[in-house]
Amino acid sequence: MASVFRAGTRLRSAARLPAARSLSTTASLRASEKPYFPNEPTAPSVSGAIPGPKNQAAAAELDEVFDVRSLNMLTDYNQSVGNYIADLDGNKLLDVYAQIASIPVGYNNPHLKEVATTPEMTSALINRPALGNFPSSEWAHILKTGVLRAAPKGLDQVFTAMAGSDANETAYKAAFMYYRQMQRGGPEVEFTEEELLSTMNNAGPGSPQLSILSFKSAFHGRLFGSLSTTRSKAIHKLDIPAFDWPQATFPQLKYPLEDHVQENAAEEQRCLAEVEQLIKEFHNPVAAVMVEPIQSEGGDNHASPAFFQGLRDITKRTNVLFIVDEVQTGVGATGKFWAHDHWNLSSPPDMVTFSKKAQTAGYYYGNPALRPNKPYRQFNTWMGDPARALIFRGIINEVERLGLVENTRITGDYLYGGLERLAEKYPQHFQNLRGKNQGTFIAWDTPKRDQLVAKAKSFGINIGGSGASAVRLRPMLVFQKHHANILLEKLEQIIQAV
Amino acid sequence: MASVFRAGTRLRSAARLPAARSLSTTASLRASEKPYFPNEPTAPSVSGAIPGPKNQAAAAELDEVFDVRSLNMLTDYNQSVGNYIADLDGNKLLDVYAQIASIPVGYNNPHLKEVATTPEMTSALINRPALGNFPSSEWAHILKTGVLRAAPKGLDQVFTAMAGSDANETAYKAAFMYYRQMQRGGPEVEFTEEELLSTMNNAGPGSPQLSILSFKSAFHGRLFGSLSTTRSKAIHKLDIPAFDWPQATFPQLKYPLEDHVQENAAEEQRCLAEVEQLIKEFHNPVAAVMVEPIQSEGGDNHASPAFFQGLRDITKRTNVLFIVDEVQTGVGATGKFWAHDHWNLSSPPDMVTFSKKAQTAGYYYGNPALRPNKPYRQFNTWMGDPARALIFRGIINEVERLGLVENTRITGDYLYGGLERLAEKYPQHFQNLRGKNQGTFIAWDTPKRDQLVAKAKSFGINIGGSGASAVRLRPMLVFQKHHANILLEKLEQIIQAV
Repeated sequence: MASVFRAGTRLRSAARLPAARSLSTTASLRASEKPYFPNEPTAPSVSGAIPGPKNQAAAAELDEVFDVRSLNMLTDYNQSVGNYIADLDGNKLLDVYAQIASIPVGYNNPHLKEVATTPEMTSALINRPALGNFPSSEWAHILKTGVLRAAPKGLDQVFTAMAGSDANETAYKAAFMYYRQMQRGGPEVEFTEEELLSTMNNAGPGSPQLSILSFKSAFHGRLFGSLSTTRSKAIHKLDIPAFDWPQATFPQLKYPLEDHVQENAAEEQRCLAEVEQLIKEFHNPVAAVMVEPIQSEGGDNHASPAFFQGLRDITKRTNVLFIVDEVQTGVGATGKFWAHDHWNLSSPPDMVTFSKKAQTAGYYYGNPALRPNKPYRQFNTWMGDPARALIFRGIINEVERLGLVENTRITGDYLYGGLERLAEKYPQHFQNLRGKNQGTFIAWDTPKRDQLVAKAKSFGINIGGSGASAVRLRPMLVFQKHHANILLEKLEQIIQAV
Repeated sequence: MASVFRAGTRLRSAARLPAARSLSTTASLRASEKPYFPNEPTAPSVSGAIPGPKNQAAAAELDEVFDVRSLNMLTDYNQSVGNYIADLDGNKLLDVYAQIASIPVGYNNPHLKEVATTPEMTSALINRPALGNFPSSEWAHILKTGVLRAAPKGLDQVFTAMAGSDANETAYKAAFMYYRQMQRGGPEVEFTEEELLSTMNNAGPGSPQLSILSFKSAFHGRLFGSLSTTRSKAIHKLDIPAFDWPQATFPQLKYPLEDHVQENAAEEQRCLAEVEQLIKEFHNPVAAVMVEPIQSEGGDNHASPAFFQGLRDITKRTNVLFIVDEVQTGVGATGKFWAHDHWNLSSPPDMVTFSKKAQTAGYYYGNPALRPNKPYRQFNTWMGDPARALIFRGIINEVERLGLVENTRITGDYLYGGLERLAEKYPQHFQNLRGKNQGTFIAWDTPKRDQLVAKAKSFGINIGGSGASAVRLRPMLVFQKHHANILLEKLEQIIQAV
């Protein structure tokens, strides 16, 4: 079988596409001190209990028609600006959760406002195309100047989707079709009569019992295929039928990293060995390994570049695809445009999925053989949303204009330093601080996490958790040093209050 | 076990929500002769071979980064208006395919243009909320004046989604959670330790082997759960793992209906008996029956109201949920706002899914017990897109302002009459004409279908097929008698040419 991706594989029009690299390295190092939003509040303001009376009334009204039990805060988006989120009662909170890590360039970003009011956007909104059949004459241009301008190195093709779950699932579908094509002996080999008949009964060989290998504590979405690779919490999975797919242990590193170098390396080797064993022995053959650069919902679990290089090596050796889920880590927050840029892989991942801060979704790939061998195998009516693709292009422009990847790197280092000092002072409240050199993608464990997250609002901070005991920071890319100072000060007050 | 939905089940705020009925019955009977789009072409114009040189060049450029093998036509949306779609070479075709049945109120609809340029839209585009956590203060109002204003009778709640596939899959998830809750004995019964542990391994009892029953030739989407209920064509399913879920035979009616009354009734009874048997005997217990009012991708297969009432009766009797997939049939095309309005069911479906012409997606339900018993069980980051919900509201306004449901009924009857005359004249080209009294949702079988569909472009008609041999008409809701006249005239020319 041919290797999945080799140096020398034809990269279509790579020369014409500026790579994502330029977004992080050629952008000039702009000071991250000057506020990006001159009209932002200079500090949070909280005028009473949260939720206040207007929020409570509005929540009751919404509850009549929409499940609000996961409601965090009804939001006044007209009053929200930059890093500050406003509620209905006039409170303005510094938002380091950012719509579950999905707001990249600030509320009411002026450049996005321009994008949203162009005739091009109007047309995308009111003349929504079936992109696989009737794309607009502008679609290639929108992709090349937008989605693909941010493409990871070596991946110059895209299949567009709607959100993280279907981005991941369509990537899985591509992996299964590719795997079976290799088994058959190439794209020209026709399906057998038995395959054609059996698949209509959801049975093999047409509907084969293949699998995707994912990791314990992983989160890859909540539709049926993606949920079968999600292992974050039972509440995400209970009562929903799942595929019999394997899970490997994700490294459980000990912190601080510099004090546990050998132990952590051994842990990663153990996990890699488990991956290889599962690929070789699991009863439902593995078509792809799916992994997050940082397990984000599962508790902000990190692993070293060596671990991910190990995954790349194993998947090459065993001829399975290597898919990186950058839904939460992608688009600049880690101090690189893509988190997997930190790894210096010997060859690119076979597919990289994206959503959240991209405000649209899909998967990148480079190997042309990952296009299924016939049309309509990977297809649906909308295949994404050009309106949202225009927004992503606007985001990329802002990232470049303001040097935001550089900003998350600089601000992240600064913030991490401040958290280290807090951890020295309050070691019981800041355990396993992690995310060093990962931009603002920082987390730590704390025994009273849920109380801390709830209490934070009264101090003017909107913050989130992940896993069982982690506080996760997911500020926007426009989070700057002066925001970090406020956050550090408030965190100290909050932990003294819980 | 409690029945899934009974008359008397509390309908929250039903009094406050105008029902979808008003959209079809109280709208005054406006003449459907006066053109809705004064600036529409009066006839198609084709100036050369399609695809022309500009289209071919643009397709080659797009192919560098995006799979174009399913490309039908690169579209100039700026030059498209009303029912006419324009390509890059200046051709303007009467569009009775309408982006796979997903454009409701015409290209460049002036009212939607207004909606798209409001400050509310701008905010929805640039401040995209995680709707389950941080909905805007306007969200309840947007739902009540939009999505829920069109809610099917008896269903006053909504879970919003992105597209048809995830709308269907989230409905399946709701069904599975509801089914297990009934088995457990109610919403208060806690999960067992065994459930909590086993689901993390994708195994029962936490991840139970339950099923959704769907029909042969059905199409419900292409993600892993929805694809397991899709039985349209092998090419949609090959190589993708599927759940072991049951399929029943969908009635294969004989036409003209009036000549096969007893035979068709017997066929429907046979299919109903099969459904009941599968529910009672299939090895993976059935949590819900999923059905399209008209099987749209699978060849435009119809069944009678009695058949669907039979499904409602069986599902009541066997305590499984009855879900109606209105992704393609919904929003006015059948001469009712929802196709299932034709059935006069004794009680509403438990859930109704929507997408396509709604330009957003989700599922409606009425029984409050279909809200899962705990928060975060039915959840994802975006849970839809408020920008697209605003567009749906604009569509509903247009449907009401222009009386478009009435229009599809009147124009559909007129068009059907014309097709009957063509079928008399060319019986070999118009077999099994179907869709009488179903608005413009009309189809027929023809032996040279693929040639006809391809050839139609040169006659200025953009038209689609479904199943193996059907031509399906999916004009927009703004398709009027003068368009029908052009279509009928061109169809006669086309069949003479193939």
